[in-house]
Amino acid sequence: MEDSYRIKPIGIVRCTFKTRDEITESKKRGNVGEIELFEEYEEGLSDIDGFSHIIVVWWMHKSDFRGLKVKPLHFPEKLRGVFATRHPDRPNPIGLTAVQLLERKGNILKVRGIDMIDGTPVIDIKPYLESDRKDGGRLGWLTGRNI
Amino acid sequence: MEDSYRIKPIGIVRCTFKTRDEITESKKRGNVGEIELFEEYEEGLSDIDGFSHIIVVWWMHKSDFRGLKVKPLHFPEKLRGVFATRHPDRPNPIGLTAVQLLERKGNILKVRGIDMIDGTPVIDIKPYLESDRKDGGRLGWLTGRNI
Repeated sequence: MEDSYRIKPIGIVRCTFKTRDEITESKKRGNVGEIELFEEYEEGLSDIDGFSHIIVVWWMHKSDFRGLKVKPLHFPEKLRGVFATRHPDRPNPIGLTAVQLLERKGNILKVRGIDMIDGTPVIDIKPYLESDRKDGGRLGWLTGRNI
Repeated sequence: MEDSYRIKPIGIVRCTFKTRDEITESKKRGNVGEIELFEEYEEGLSDIDGFSHIIVVWWMHKSDFRGLKVKPLHFPEKLRGVFATRHPDRPNPIGLTAVQLLERKGNILKVRGIDMIDGTPVIDIKPYLESDRKDGGRLGWLTGRNI
């Protein structure tokens, strides 16, 4: 196994959120914004129009990893293992967001459900498949919380 | 925006699949294996036990990116835009798999639903949340196919 791997941005998020403190679950749900792929990647978006949902893989460029226990942003009363949270300050600051695909125009995807801040680097786009849907799961320490 | 970012493996997949050709949707579903985090990351798994599902983020170390159109592994009759597929040969070869968490023992997670090959590097673990579940979606070119 290699010591490390290199990834590069393929696009950028355009939306109204300027800081991560603004982003709450309720605001996120309706939030419409754009995923702009750099033009050289546009060809890779062929056939994506038929999918109602996609997964945006993004780079948490404001991340500042300091340790394996973190205070969750909206539930800071207790330290939690970072892998039991979606906290951005993690060893590899990769973010995942399943969004609704509203429209595609060339290299621009109009989507609903953005929880990244404006200017976030995008590193991959994937179609949302049946196997990504898991029903009736237990939510651990988040059970009963408004997320 | 920076030109590139560096990520590092935090663990490894242990399972029975030795080549990607062996992996089909039906075999994957029941497939039990282990995600072994390197010991220095064990502390980050605190609080994960209560989640029934987790998302494994992994590095497609056998990936060989050659172009933005690919032949899907199980449906090779037509070239598709790589971002409308889960094909491993993509600009940033990051894989996502939502699996059922069966048991945790220290730095080892026993999971069901693995679709990686044995020895795959793991780069992140995330709890599966309500917002990861999208219902009744359209599946584009995959509609009606057995995936």
